[in-house]
Amino acid sequence: MKTFVSGRLTPVLLFVCAVLLQVHFMNAQSTESALMPMPAQMEMGDGHFSIDGKLSIALAGYSEPRLVLAKERFFETLGRETGIPFQQESRDQQPNFTVTTSGPSKAVQELGEDESYHLKIWASGVRLTAATPLGVLHGLQTFLQLVKITPQGFAVPVVTIYDNPRFAWRGLMIDSGRHFMPVEVIERNLDGMEAVKLNVFHWHLSEDQGFRVESTVFPLLQEKGSNGLYYSQKQIAEVIEYARDRGIRVVPEFDMPCHTTSWFVGYPQLASGPGPYQIQTRWGIFDYAMDPTRESTFEFLDRFLGEVTALFPDAYFHIGGDECNGKEWDANPRIQAYMKEHGLKDDAALQATFTERIQKLVVAHHKIPEGWDEILQPDTARDVVIQSWRGQKGLATAVRQGNRALLSNGYYIDLNQSAAYHYSNDPLGGDGASLTAEQKALVLGGEATMWSEFVTPENIDSRIWPRTAAIAERLWSPQEVRDVDSMYRRLAVVSQHLQYYSLNHESFTLSMLQRMSGESDPRNLQVLADVVQPPEGYQRESLKQYDTSSPLNRLVDAVPPESEQARQFNELVKLIVAGKATPEQWQQARTWLVRWRDNDVQLQPSLPQSEITAELVPLSHDLSEVATIGLHALDDLQSHGAANPGLVASNMQLLKAAEKPEAVLRNMIVPPVEILLQATGSH
Amino acid sequence: MKTFVSGRLTPVLLFVCAVLLQVHFMNAQSTESALMPMPAQMEMGDGHFSIDGKLSIALAGYSEPRLVLAKERFFETLGRETGIPFQQESRDQQPNFTVTTSGPSKAVQELGEDESYHLKIWASGVRLTAATPLGVLHGLQTFLQLVKITPQGFAVPVVTIYDNPRFAWRGLMIDSGRHFMPVEVIERNLDGMEAVKLNVFHWHLSEDQGFRVESTVFPLLQEKGSNGLYYSQKQIAEVIEYARDRGIRVVPEFDMPCHTTSWFVGYPQLASGPGPYQIQTRWGIFDYAMDPTRESTFEFLDRFLGEVTALFPDAYFHIGGDECNGKEWDANPRIQAYMKEHGLKDDAALQATFTERIQKLVVAHHKIPEGWDEILQPDTARDVVIQSWRGQKGLATAVRQGNRALLSNGYYIDLNQSAAYHYSNDPLGGDGASLTAEQKALVLGGEATMWSEFVTPENIDSRIWPRTAAIAERLWSPQEVRDVDSMYRRLAVVSQHLQYYSLNHESFTLSMLQRMSGESDPRNLQVLADVVQPPEGYQRESLKQYDTSSPLNRLVDAVPPESEQARQFNELVKLIVAGKATPEQWQQARTWLVRWRDNDVQLQPSLPQSEITAELVPLSHDLSEVATIGLHALDDLQSHGAANPGLVASNMQLLKAAEKPEAVLRNMIVPPVEILLQATGSH
Repeated sequence: MKTFVSGRLTPVLLFVCAVLLQVHFMNAQSTESALMPMPAQMEMGDGHFSIDGKLSIALAGYSEPRLVLAKERFFETLGRETGIPFQQESRDQQPNFTVTTSGPSKAVQELGEDESYHLKIWASGVRLTAATPLGVLHGLQTFLQLVKITPQGFAVPVVTIYDNPRFAWRGLMIDSGRHFMPVEVIERNLDGMEAVKLNVFHWHLSEDQGFRVESTVFPLLQEKGSNGLYYSQKQIAEVIEYARDRGIRVVPEFDMPCHTTSWFVGYPQLASGPGPYQIQTRWGIFDYAMDPTRESTFEFLDRFLGEVTALFPDAYFHIGGDECNGKEWDANPRIQAYMKEHGLKDDAALQATFTERIQKLVVAHHKIPEGWDEILQPDTARDVVIQSWRGQKGLATAVRQGNRALLSNGYYIDLNQSAAYHYSNDPLGGDGASLTAEQKALVLGGEATMWSEFVTPENIDSRIWPRTAAIAERLWSPQEVRDVDSMYRRLAVVSQHLQYYSLNHESFTLSMLQRMSGESDPRNLQVLADVVQPPEGYQRESLKQYDTSSPLNRLVDAVPPESEQARQFNELVKLIVAGKATPEQWQQARTWLVRWRDNDVQLQPSLPQSEITAELVPLSHDLSEVATIGLHALDDLQSHGAANPGLVASNMQLLKAAEKPEAVLRNMIVPPVEILLQATGSH
Repeated sequence: MKTFVSGRLTPVLLFVCAVLLQVHFMNAQSTESALMPMPAQMEMGDGHFSIDGKLSIALAGYSEPRLVLAKERFFETLGRETGIPFQQESRDQQPNFTVTTSGPSKAVQELGEDESYHLKIWASGVRLTAATPLGVLHGLQTFLQLVKITPQGFAVPVVTIYDNPRFAWRGLMIDSGRHFMPVEVIERNLDGMEAVKLNVFHWHLSEDQGFRVESTVFPLLQEKGSNGLYYSQKQIAEVIEYARDRGIRVVPEFDMPCHTTSWFVGYPQLASGPGPYQIQTRWGIFDYAMDPTRESTFEFLDRFLGEVTALFPDAYFHIGGDECNGKEWDANPRIQAYMKEHGLKDDAALQATFTERIQKLVVAHHKIPEGWDEILQPDTARDVVIQSWRGQKGLATAVRQGNRALLSNGYYIDLNQSAAYHYSNDPLGGDGASLTAEQKALVLGGEATMWSEFVTPENIDSRIWPRTAAIAERLWSPQEVRDVDSMYRRLAVVSQHLQYYSLNHESFTLSMLQRMSGESDPRNLQVLADVVQPPEGYQRESLKQYDTSSPLNRLVDAVPPESEQARQFNELVKLIVAGKATPEQWQQARTWLVRWRDNDVQLQPSLPQSEITAELVPLSHDLSEVATIGLHALDDLQSHGAANPGLVASNMQLLKAAEKPEAVLRNMIVPPVEILLQATGSH
């Protein structure tokens, strides 16, 4: 149609506004193939293989039910990715996607099995070959990541991939102890793990705040130690099968001899103190510990291990061993006497005797023991696997002793650090770089650890994803794959892709903002939410008191650990001060600053209407002030004007003050605005 | 903090823009109590009852497991509404919420049981009393709808409610035949039904395109008739229990003698033609019908009814009976001879003989028959319930004959009509208004019907919710509750509330827009999506060919049936032309029109990048043109300028052309812009 308009002018102002404020968010467009982890070898060709309802897969070679299930899940996911109803079995034509498996993988998935695959996509068909079903699972996920919409419909690019992992142990730990996580949370995260080729689910199952496994031998463990929130043995078996279907091992952890208050509620005789004990409702390190001096402790644990090692088929068994402060041992004269009698000079020595006994019990139950780096002693048995959480040094120490080890330091995804930080952390970087080839071979890989003080089933996905995909790439892809810009570009696409696995890491914010504001369209609150982050590291607890009954329903709980908008603004600012920004980038920076400056006027009236948002008044106000400083700095830089040094200094003071968390949140535009302001001073 | 700024001016233009374009969407604020359905009697008091982790419920009086489960689900939902972890059992204090139940409801829920409840909320506590568990379930949902965030935290207002339903039969039908709906879809919609006090789930289980129930007596029904997509008997039993826990009856429908192609694939001997038969892959009315002239047909159905009437405990059993075109009967000489022999003058008479036999079989299996209005004959047995889909007249005819009846005409939620339309449709309005009191008593209520040609598990929630809440109010609340503005205000809040039951009717659009565009932030596509609607009624099939393999992944599938933004714009326009609009409302209308006018420039380049969005090019262009006409009309009205009659006429022609669907979508701002343009002509 064509419009005939009268001779009157349209309101020019509004037109200009609309164009100016039309913001492009540097979206990750799916016009590139955004694989994560990047394959070991990949060669792109020309053209595409089109995806329509007639896509049909033939399974050839070795067959087992898991492959048939994998094919069904593949079509389910592809259906969510495309909205196409697949027939799965084509009556009329040859299958155009053949999957060939050479042979079986182990009945119980083992560390170091062949996970390689070869994926070849032509315009006319697809061929996936792998030595074992594990490689098939990985290859199917690669295909699913390659799917994109094109002018001709959904398609995958023509490509040849040879792929296999750099490390054999690529894990995610979820702490079900501090906040219980229902099976559906575990399962959707196993889906996410499969999508990025992680292969070990480390399940942290007991804590001071809860014992989460049904024991039939010692039922008071869950009856008194869990507030009713625990996994039945049937559920555990289902999770293990669910994980196996996805090429994922399940390694259970029962943390001993400390972090064990919940055990003592039902079985106080295990403890080193007089009791009675209650489930802990606060966070932190507690004084309670198992009594390593009594035979009855080990008799209990022997029977306990007999039950749970049968429940978890994996060859490895995690005994914890972290964070013993020894105070309950110190306070018990009988234990003190025992230590003296046995020449144990300190609590660490006492713990070492405990660890040695437990290790032997674990081995007696046909498992390979694993523990946090505290359990490493010079005489630790060579088969024990060390999980290093305190630093890369611990990892190096362990493998120099001949123990195998994996890295978790640097992969603590509960600490709200950036994807770039985790991505830069290499198991063979830092202290690991100086290891011999033989020692390096003892480094099994790494694990992201999701400790659960500050997560609930509602927001845990957002702490795990998408950042864990970057860790997965670090553990799978060649060491030289480390371009951070590329990682962030692909991470945005992968994050969207992960939504097809029922993960809520992108959608959770809006629903939480709606709830806290009582508004169905909380757009101004969203503007604030887009640029703030939870405190990094362990700072949160120092800012406010929390316990297990604290509602995690505030803005700090509703925003992702890393603000993508602030990160992009920071990148813009770097280009601007380096004199490399395009006019569009200058405009983009200005548009954002204007939005942040003007948001407070709109948001402020509604904040006190909700007890939850009332605390955001200073944060919202500060965002406006910081953005105002940023806009003036931008003006100065753009006009090459001379900044008033006194004004720069006083504004810098204000920015420093705004670095301080408000409402347990960091304003992430403060650092880039500081850079802008500093640059005006250097003219 | 205070900001020191340099003496330079901030860019005035940008500041003004930001303020001007800061749009308030007339959000439904949860500052009023937005109950739906409105209670029979309600008196608001002053103050609030605060909700915190110590909320504790005591169940008193009659007890049964369903009440304990209801209490657990109540805390689960309340946890989602507030983010508060509830302890459920308070050790330290008296429960502050008492629920008293006088006695049991029937073992199998019956039509017309006492569903009343009395809810009394003081600032210090809550008391819910009910005759039966059914009333308790309703009262708990009322409480959950009352929850809102306040400056003092989450709370419910002080209020006294006496409530009971107007109609005893308040249903939602879901068609699992045309598109199969997995159990999880059914269950989350049962949750939604409970939230708005619907009490009958009518499950449409067989269609030309699929037979969806496992039969052990006639296993070829599902084996050949379902493409593997059917409910196991175990799943059906679970759904029935799930529904019963929520105070909902499950009435199964097996549609006979037509809509039965899927039966004939495995059992062609039931049919009136020679066969062989395939599951239908197209939509529409087919010629195939059961053979009512052979005894073997009724022997089969007798055994079949024996099996399925045992599976579904409800007293009522729906036999369908709609849309027989008789062609297969007409084409069969044996059947024609039979009709002649028995003096059956037409196909309707033949169908009546079938219906009579089936009714008797249903009664023999101890069920009360129900059917669509086609089955009503002058001599239809008095116990048969008639579901009127073709008009209110059928309802009146049925009850005048002494049959009980319920209304579905006007509640066809698959037809993309407005909530206001459904809301205005009263079972005792229209032809029903002239009934005697005795006849009115035979009107049991009504049912929303979700036929599934154009829905998948991905978007079905959006076709059911929130509009079905308005129908639920029509069926529950007093007839005089009919203020449409109030309904829409409350519907927006209830829609948000329904998200706490895992329904995706609000979130599905974004994920579908992401998929079709390949963009993670498809904001320009969203602007277009916000103002378009699927065609009303049965127009969609005339615009494009569809069958069971058609992907439902286009914009028409991704937008709600009713555009809330267009509806609000329409309301604004009515105020403007009536001279009753405030300056803010003028500004709001202008802001929207500017956005719509300018969106195309931003959106247009990306549309051809996706085969799915490419078809939107003309629609996006037209939105801009229509908005441009609207802006000029607004200018003319605001300046009281004289419009050029020729220009008005030619623009009106353009608007008429823009009424025509593009890409199977209606542009919903065309009608209000027509009103604006017309108003300029009347100056």
